[in-house]
Amino acid sequence: MRTVVLAFGGNALVPEGQSGTFQQQLANAEGMAGIVADLVGRGDRLVVTHGNGPQVGSLALQQEQGVDVTPAQPLFALGAMTQGQIGQLLELALRNHSPASPVQALALVTHVLVDASDDAFQEPTKPIGPVFEEDDAKRLADERGWRLVEDAGRGWRRVVPSPEPLDIVEDDAVRALVDAGTLVIAAGGGGIPVVRGDDGRLEGVDAVIDKDLVAERLAATVRADALVLITDEDEVSLDFGTPRQRPVHEMSIDEAEAHLAQGQFPPGSMGPKVTAAVRFLRNGGEVAIITSAEHVLAALDGEHGTRMVGGT
Amino acid sequence: MRTVVLAFGGNALVPEGQSGTFQQQLANAEGMAGIVADLVGRGDRLVVTHGNGPQVGSLALQQEQGVDVTPAQPLFALGAMTQGQIGQLLELALRNHSPASPVQALALVTHVLVDASDDAFQEPTKPIGPVFEEDDAKRLADERGWRLVEDAGRGWRRVVPSPEPLDIVEDDAVRALVDAGTLVIAAGGGGIPVVRGDDGRLEGVDAVIDKDLVAERLAATVRADALVLITDEDEVSLDFGTPRQRPVHEMSIDEAEAHLAQGQFPPGSMGPKVTAAVRFLRNGGEVAIITSAEHVLAALDGEHGTRMVGGT
Repeated sequence: MRTVVLAFGGNALVPEGQSGTFQQQLANAEGMAGIVADLVGRGDRLVVTHGNGPQVGSLALQQEQGVDVTPAQPLFALGAMTQGQIGQLLELALRNHSPASPVQALALVTHVLVDASDDAFQEPTKPIGPVFEEDDAKRLADERGWRLVEDAGRGWRRVVPSPEPLDIVEDDAVRALVDAGTLVIAAGGGGIPVVRGDDGRLEGVDAVIDKDLVAERLAATVRADALVLITDEDEVSLDFGTPRQRPVHEMSIDEAEAHLAQGQFPPGSMGPKVTAAVRFLRNGGEVAIITSAEHVLAALDGEHGTRMVGGT
Repeated sequence: MRTVVLAFGGNALVPEGQSGTFQQQLANAEGMAGIVADLVGRGDRLVVTHGNGPQVGSLALQQEQGVDVTPAQPLFALGAMTQGQIGQLLELALRNHSPASPVQALALVTHVLVDASDDAFQEPTKPIGPVFEEDDAKRLADERGWRLVEDAGRGWRRVVPSPEPLDIVEDDAVRALVDAGTLVIAAGGGGIPVVRGDDGRLEGVDAVIDKDLVAERLAATVRADALVLITDEDEVSLDFGTPRQRPVHEMSIDEAEAHLAQGQFPPGSMGPKVTAAVRFLRNGGEVAIITSAEHVLAALDGEHGTRMVGGT
């Protein structure tokens, strides 16, 4: 029995062109559950993770609208809320896929340890939440210690650090659940970022950890055989967006690292996915796949998507 | 080793007089963690549950403030968000209590099955979310199918059903975790209510399940020895709020049922706690305690609070 870690993008539940009503998210969750169920049907053990961009954006926006009547919570608390919200949707969709013999799915609150001295904390780059007018931006910078940057032509947005994930805090429980045959949904939105103080205590920090890099940490936690990173594209391409664009169906670790070094894969899109795949395979993983939701099964059979294998 | 299910009230994190800032909730979570850690230190296995009234109220209020810019989610989705939010707070507070040898705490998304034909669905009684003007109340009743009632002198509020809890949907996973030595935080806010359709599928419904009755279901799931229900009062009283008020330190199951039948314990406060205790003991539980946070340890030793034992 293989263990597969599957990472859905943040827009899998709220794709471009949808506003994110509950009915839309429910229908999309059911589609995602179908993909997971196909893998379960092949006899694989699944661990599922997911982004939370649209959902955490909505919560950040709502709480600024309501800030005069009820206290705003830190970003990492909103992240925890989205783990509940999205975990609920995905878990129930999975349990409902075959009601007669339901998948025993379970969504967990998951923290991810980051290093307080990570360079990312010096240079916050990840925009989050609503767009503000300049006056409000200055006030929020003062009142809450936020860093805000101008988003050309639109207004001001908060930026937060995107540090490297080190470890899944709940690793023991995740392993116990996987061993017990539970389909675990974990580390949603890249996990709730925590730093360890000198006294050993963990403290939440406002940051956004890349969910593909966290998927790799999750894969290491459960010693997964396969890491599947789902994206909008059917496969990784070289010279993307140029006339020379061409798909890559197989890539060795060395080739991937060379392409990364040449800047072939931008930081905000394929970069972290290819990096996560390389780390997974260097750590002893068997196969990493980057593909779109519709091609996951075929990609595992080597017929679509981008496939990278270890030991090369 | 005894297994203890401990239920905190919804205002344990946001007591009267506090607005619910993150720092307030964090400090209160650390106090709650101290109580739990004392029980863990006695060698007990703990399962923790909690209310979510203030937190779900805040989210309901915020999303109405932001309803023109991002879609409102159903109440049960807000409940799922609070399981993430509160679960995160409690879990980290528990792990931080003894950083050198942290409690392996884990917060779960938890659904609770209710019966679609429960009488409660005919007569929604539980007020939830913000107070509306009459015009808005009528519009919301039309647009969203809400039931709203006038709250004397204040305005209109939505009311939702409060059905009986039947089962914890994630029961297998909860048992596996408890067996693996994990301190489980589950069924927050009374759980996310779901009904089972004719096709066997589970569907979220907007309702609020009493958290003490759910604590009893959780206790049955893990075959707990003790059920501890924490409240603002140090113990159960008879003729509460009258000159004849007197505390009850020991109560048999039969006495408790007689008092319930006489209307000694109001539905919104001690009623569900005493009912939960009676059900727990009738199901084979050993001891049920109703007391305040500060007296939990003494109450387990029979020195404070109200103690009910089985087999009587």
